[in-house]
Amino acid sequence: MTTPLAARIARDYGTPAAVIDMDKVERNIARVQAACEAAGLANRPHIKTHKSPLLAKLQVAAGAKGITCQKLGEAEVMAEAGIDDILISYNLIGEEKMARLAALQAKATMTVAADNSTVVAGLPRAAAQSGRLLNVVVECDTGRKRAGVETPGEAIALAREIAASKRLNFVGFMLYPTETGWAEAQRFYDEALAGVRAHGLDAAMVSTGGTPNLKNVGKLRGATEHRPGTYIYNDRMQVKAGVAGWDDCALTIYSTVVSRAGPDRGILDAGSKTLTSDTGGGLDGHGLILEHPAKIARFAEEHGFLDLTRSNTRPNVGDVVRIVPNHVCVVVNMMDEVVMVRGEEIVGTLPVAARGKLR
Amino acid sequence: MTTPLAARIARDYGTPAAVIDMDKVERNIARVQAACEAAGLANRPHIKTHKSPLLAKLQVAAGAKGITCQKLGEAEVMAEAGIDDILISYNLIGEEKMARLAALQAKATMTVAADNSTVVAGLPRAAAQSGRLLNVVVECDTGRKRAGVETPGEAIALAREIAASKRLNFVGFMLYPTETGWAEAQRFYDEALAGVRAHGLDAAMVSTGGTPNLKNVGKLRGATEHRPGTYIYNDRMQVKAGVAGWDDCALTIYSTVVSRAGPDRGILDAGSKTLTSDTGGGLDGHGLILEHPAKIARFAEEHGFLDLTRSNTRPNVGDVVRIVPNHVCVVVNMMDEVVMVRGEEIVGTLPVAARGKLR
Repeated sequence: MTTPLAARIARDYGTPAAVIDMDKVERNIARVQAACEAAGLANRPHIKTHKSPLLAKLQVAAGAKGITCQKLGEAEVMAEAGIDDILISYNLIGEEKMARLAALQAKATMTVAADNSTVVAGLPRAAAQSGRLLNVVVECDTGRKRAGVETPGEAIALAREIAASKRLNFVGFMLYPTETGWAEAQRFYDEALAGVRAHGLDAAMVSTGGTPNLKNVGKLRGATEHRPGTYIYNDRMQVKAGVAGWDDCALTIYSTVVSRAGPDRGILDAGSKTLTSDTGGGLDGHGLILEHPAKIARFAEEHGFLDLTRSNTRPNVGDVVRIVPNHVCVVVNMMDEVVMVRGEEIVGTLPVAARGKLR
Repeated sequence: MTTPLAARIARDYGTPAAVIDMDKVERNIARVQAACEAAGLANRPHIKTHKSPLLAKLQVAAGAKGITCQKLGEAEVMAEAGIDDILISYNLIGEEKMARLAALQAKATMTVAADNSTVVAGLPRAAAQSGRLLNVVVECDTGRKRAGVETPGEAIALAREIAASKRLNFVGFMLYPTETGWAEAQRFYDEALAGVRAHGLDAAMVSTGGTPNLKNVGKLRGATEHRPGTYIYNDRMQVKAGVAGWDDCALTIYSTVVSRAGPDRGILDAGSKTLTSDTGGGLDGHGLILEHPAKIARFAEEHGFLDLTRSNTRPNVGDVVRIVPNHVCVVVNMMDEVVMVRGEEIVGTLPVAARGKLR
């Protein structure tokens, strides 16, 4: 079974194609903006999910204070398009990156994260080149064991190092608590805040993050903003996390069944070079097919292996199915463009302008 | 510890960066060309690994008969660059794809694969638009359960359907045996060949595939060509398969250690948006670091989580390490360009021109 819209997508663009429903995108933007405002927080959406200046501007127009980027290359695309308040939530190191950061400072108000002295020691080079103070937040780890200082004491010491540079402006703390780690985050933040205040500093920016954490948004007393990313499209991970329903999943991959060589199996034209091997933290199968209770059991680069053994309806060769990805952020990063629709109408294509900006 | 070359790569291009050693690339090209010739086979390298017309031309200049592509978009890039003998080893379906295939036929001698009647019924549309006979091989499955007819009887029937179309030219069989499935492939092929001959047809093209199968190349009596892809760069999978050594791995990812928040751990600036979540069929860790016996234990999108517990040498923040990917084909597909070196000298950048050509 191929829906009329899927047939038109296949005819006009071919498959596999990433299709976003702009009605759902706008609804997701509005809902999360409202949730942040209801919690008394600014919204600073992470653009790593959509990588599109147009969508970033929709988020800002809806009330977002600014945006979050993970990489300089993403920030460059966004600043070029006129976004003027950008947090790069990442340790930036090296003279090549400092030169680019300086150029960004000429276009936008830039804030960067740091979790160690090597990073802090390098940042003044960018600020000096730009002639503009650089805002720095201390990244704090509260259980995720990714980046981030591990103790309030380290956070306080790093804040003081930042403040000691005449080129840098200590502005606060960046946290990314686990879904169950907000009490720990509160203890960490309270101690770090008291520590910096004891040294005459203060935290004007206290940023929490994550779409799965929308259920916790506002729980950190003292937080000033939240950085959700995936909510603009949502995916199987967000549905599992309980922060979205299937109807909130704004992006689906349209894929053609190209082979049915066995009765219990089939092949999709979307493999790991379209949907990626990201399991979404251990989800069963590589995406959810909306038309059939079939499992995408494994991948080759350009083949999705359909397991139909548990499916009472079975697609024919040539059928186009729609797939909700496990993890939409990495899937969008595979695409040069996505197709925009509104309900059953095709609107056009949207470039994924910051796709592949890995540095 | 950062090598002098790594320091220059970081300074000139930034990290993460994909770096290919052209000396190794050329050596890999020459070795596999010689292996095919020694087996009495033509070489039809799969360009899905490098996605670069320049490298495809090096392969042809070294003696390759033509190339293999998985997607029309890849073939379009290669034909535009002047490659004139292209196999698309994939079931192509739909009028959008037929129009593009027709346009390709105007530029190059095209052969496509088919494993079902729906595909065969659609292909004459492309041939009619181009005014040129279209070569078709029957894709045969011999154990991989990917695409491919499952029995010689189906292969014979499909060959007859192809031959019955005045627009299509049945040219033979395409096989992709598993590493241990060559005896089965021989039985399949022998029966299919006898069957088509009984109907007045013959197989001028009998194509086997796979870099791990280089150890089997030539084993199929009657084969005319082989389609290896990964060999141009190699990766952890090929080393594990026993068809390459570490010194044959021509592509490494240069990545900076950006955080060392805990004594037993660190963070690389290469995550799943650089190295992908592809485990290479269950390898331990997400790539092999050449400088330290450290494990890339897991990924966020832009963070590689270093587990240093078993490493007696530990990197500092700012160190640049080199990583051999698990599966190089999907990693190259993340990049707009790779950096070419020869030994310790930087040559320049090479666009990954067919990157992201997912349709």
